[in-house]
Amino acid sequence: MAERPRQLAHLEHLGDATQFAAQMHSLIPKCALLENFSPAEVELLAHFMDVYRAEAATEIIREGDGGDFMLMILEGRVEVHKRDRWNAQQLLAAVDAGRTLGEMSMIDGEPRFATCIAAEPTLIAVLDRESLARIIVEQPLLGAKILMELVLMLSQRLRATSDRLMEVLDEQGQHASAPM
Amino acid sequence: MAERPRQLAHLEHLGDATQFAAQMHSLIPKCALLENFSPAEVELLAHFMDVYRAEAATEIIREGDGGDFMLMILEGRVEVHKRDRWNAQQLLAAVDAGRTLGEMSMIDGEPRFATCIAAEPTLIAVLDRESLARIIVEQPLLGAKILMELVLMLSQRLRATSDRLMEVLDEQGQHASAPM
Repeated sequence: MAERPRQLAHLEHLGDATQFAAQMHSLIPKCALLENFSPAEVELLAHFMDVYRAEAATEIIREGDGGDFMLMILEGRVEVHKRDRWNAQQLLAAVDAGRTLGEMSMIDGEPRFATCIAAEPTLIAVLDRESLARIIVEQPLLGAKILMELVLMLSQRLRATSDRLMEVLDEQGQHASAPM
Repeated sequence: MAERPRQLAHLEHLGDATQFAAQMHSLIPKCALLENFSPAEVELLAHFMDVYRAEAATEIIREGDGGDFMLMILEGRVEVHKRDRWNAQQLLAAVDAGRTLGEMSMIDGEPRFATCIAAEPTLIAVLDRESLARIIVEQPLLGAKILMELVLMLSQRLRATSDRLMEVLDEQGQHASAPM
């Protein structure tokens, strides 16, 4: 990683992820991104990621911020919050090791959708857009695999979110307002 | 394309998309999938796609069906319908040339989310999962570009759908029910 994301400057940097490759590999059953990865592919990917430690109650990603990285939780627990229209923080989810966060902004560069806060001491492995671009050029098959997994994950989340939206609109007797 | 999707057997097959490459290229300003494609890349992609004509009122994709292809509308207009919980067809959207449909099932193999019906005589260019896999192996940079655009499109739709869901839940005073 050429330059580390400035949004992570407040976290302890533990070096690149190669020394955590075995730990990443053990997360495969819990990690949608890695589910079809071989140990060799995890090892290769780890070369392009950096690991950080976040103490409990530390903000890792802030809703509305810029930031072109995604992260994988290696250890610990992260709470995901979003402000409602009265600007109150609402807890959307609490997620554990193996979960990835921040994929959308890594890809589209749009502001962060939600805030992610370490709920306990947490280790994260970070992949930024520049590193993903390097993977695509230097290791095109690995790049395609990562992108394919991202498409799968987003597709499944979009199905779940669209289903939920349809349900809620059905309950209200509203229709035709689902974004397409 | 080795074998044509059986779900499209009722449509007129016009051959592979190379003869439509110029038309595909002219859609770039209206087509999120192609927005960063050069003419040479569109030409290359066209080799992996097949073109079909659908008469007005013909079903192209049926909600709940299997099917591992996506399509790009080259000409015409397609209506997207989904059944509500009373099993009534609801119009979600009407979309035009340049719009792509069916990406989620191409990638994840899950049943179709909605039904797509030609609202007028319509030309579609079709890419199936097998052809995408061939592109990734034979033309890895083109493959990565397609996947990157798919991630971008899904990411933007997921943001829009999540925003809409948050809005609707806010209106109802419900929270924490957004899928993460």
